[in-house]
Amino acid sequence: MTMMLAGADLELLQLPAFAALAIQLPGGALQNTIMWYRVDQDTLRMIAPAASAKARALQRSPQVAVAIHDPDNSYDYLEIRGHAEVVADDAAARAELREIAGRYIGERAGAYVAALSDTPRVLIVVRPDRVRRHRGAPVPAAG
Amino acid sequence: MTMMLAGADLELLQLPAFAALAIQLPGGALQNTIMWYRVDQDTLRMIAPAASAKARALQRSPQVAVAIHDPDNSYDYLEIRGHAEVVADDAAARAELREIAGRYIGERAGAYVAALSDTPRVLIVVRPDRVRRHRGAPVPAAG
Repeated sequence: MTMMLAGADLELLQLPAFAALAIQLPGGALQNTIMWYRVDQDTLRMIAPAASAKARALQRSPQVAVAIHDPDNSYDYLEIRGHAEVVADDAAARAELREIAGRYIGERAGAYVAALSDTPRVLIVVRPDRVRRHRGAPVPAAG
Repeated sequence: MTMMLAGADLELLQLPAFAALAIQLPGGALQNTIMWYRVDQDTLRMIAPAASAKARALQRSPQVAVAIHDPDNSYDYLEIRGHAEVVADDAAARAELREIAGRYIGERAGAYVAALSDTPRVLIVVRPDRVRRHRGAPVPAAG
């Protein structure tokens, strides 16, 4: 299998950066939210409440576009276009969230997940269709 | 007129942060790219090449969602949903780009714009329909 997420792109993705996740809502409006994520195999994993607009919209319209920039150089970023699968398994989502949270808050991840409300969560699995690296410099080419 | 971009949200927008701009491409895929921007009155201004996929797509499908996070605290961000107008006026786009670039590269903005290729640029004017501030903490509520 050809990996879509590899090499220098994978290095960027393994930084504790944040993902801007764009989706389409029912009715056509777009949503663009800042998310924690983790790479697993050739996917991005994210978590959302099962009842959220995000989880419900993705079940109807799975197309996503994710932008992730190097926290130390916003001119260097990845755009990942793909499709999201919503896995309605609260236990799996919480187990995954512990892994994801560890990237951002380290040892506090266990206590963080343990303290969550009982509101069911879903696992969002983003499979890339197209990955594009934009390598800008502090003075980039315009647009 | 009620301003959509005001108060603490305007303070965040006036930081030299970057915008993740989500749009819909012909065929339904989404695009999410990292952009320079500037606030003017109650709009966001951005620049793109006239021939870019972005400029062409926005003329067909003006819905956008913009996510902008505080560079010093990614848990604090704005999501702006709105509509974009594409203004095909290269001179106006270059004049605006000089203003926008000044936010990011200061005095170098003039030389930067002067050195651009002749490729025509367009001005993208984003008018907000809905502005939502997400104020997270370093350990946020999940999703």
